Amino acid sequence: MRIDMQQFWTEKDFDALDKRQRAQFFNSLSGAKSANLVGTVDGQGQTNLSMVSSCVHLGANPSLMAMIIRPRAVARHTIENLIEMNHWTINHVTAPMVHQAHQTSARYPKEVSEFDAVGLTAEFKNNFVAPFVKESPLQIGLKLVRVVPIIENDTEMVIGEIKQVYFEGAALRQDGSLSINKLGTVAVTGLDHYQSLNHLVRLSYAKPSESLEELTDI
Amino acid sequence: MRIDMQQFWTEKDFDALDKRQRAQFFNSLSGAKSANLVGTVDGQGQTNLSMVSSCVHLGANPSLMAMIIRPRAVARHTIENLIEMNHWTINHVTAPMVHQAHQTSARYPKEVSEFDAVGLTAEFKNNFVAPFVKESPLQIGLKLVRVVPIIENDTEMVIGEIKQVYFEGAALRQDGSLSINKLGTVAVTGLDHYQSLNHLVRLSYAKPSESLEELTDI
Repeated sequence: MRIDMQQFWTEKDFDALDKRQRAQFFNSLSGAKSANLVGTVDGQGQTNLSMVSSCVHLGANPSLMAMIIRPRAVARHTIENLIEMNHWTINHVTAPMVHQAHQTSARYPKEVSEFDAVGLTAEFKNNFVAPFVKESPLQIGLKLVRVVPIIENDTEMVIGEIKQVYFEGAALRQDGSLSINKLGTVAVTGLDHYQSLNHLVRLSYAKPSESLEELTDI
Repeated sequence: MRIDMQQFWTEKDFDALDKRQRAQFFNSLSGAKSANLVGTVDGQGQTNLSMVSSCVHLGANPSLMAMIIRPRAVARHTIENLIEMNHWTINHVTAPMVHQAHQTSARYPKEVSEFDAVGLTAEFKNNFVAPFVKESPLQIGLKLVRVVPIIENDTEMVIGEIKQVYFEGAALRQDGSLSINKLGTVAVTGLDHYQSLNHLVRLSYAKPSESLEELTDI
């Protein structure tokens, strides 16, 4: 058990950080983040690919996923494309793709596709409007449900319904879950730190009067 | 590069899953998730602690964090407490705390504090209304900004402003970021799989015409 916390910060400490440090600090606080590439296309066929670390599960039925998109004043291609075309893709990032995935966060002009710029492959398949990332072991096609404005800082939460999922069959377990370890998906912490995920323990469904069991199907 | 994806699922495949498999499958899709314990208290002093894997960074200035809360029909203690008291805490989960953290997801009656039930320590300090988890190496105190209803499935997004942060000083880097590895924070994948985070690479800020550098301050 830890007995002391050496640092206690409040608003005056936050305000003593410069802008870049402040971004680094607060981006560290949520802990592990998902590492996904979001693929979109506009009506003229111009593709776009962007690194997103804010994808979050909303619910299984209906099957909904959300992500937080930065203010349009700083990054508008993804949000504009997905509103125009009503569809986008989410693609897990693996260790061999980390440098390419991170490079998509550079500010390329609209007429440059990040797929081409970083060397990943845009894959159009099964009549889905938006491009998947061919190199990714888990690819999800979503249809726009709603954009929720977050008025406090001009970000937006985009809610999508999951329409198509492509994945490596070896990762599927009997219970319906996917082994993220078999897929090779990585995590992000802070703004720029890529981390591998290593199995610690899988635990049984918790009930008040029962002890947890460690699941062996990992 | 991967050349085939053995599995391609659409709505008919989703609908072939039973309810539990469906929850497992869709909870796997976002990838890595943060592992946090949310501490609250009601007006009578009854504390509550719940495992939340949906905390997400919203912005650094103002310093905002959000989380998705399940429908009140299935889990109402956390949301009711934080609306009543306007404050809550988010506390990183580490490997030694994983069993206790997971056990908080059991359906305890309102009069039972999960702190007591699982053996974690509620810590009230510096006049903050909600209880921190003493065993956690990163503790965040938040004030309610807004609850956003997600009408599509009766979940809610709770937006909070970060007011207090306690952390182990050794984890702070010069650039303002925190080393999640030094804190020992774990990740969750799917509903029940706890994973350690292991350094792969830290990358420099991406620019269109520059090569990425691997940062040495890890």
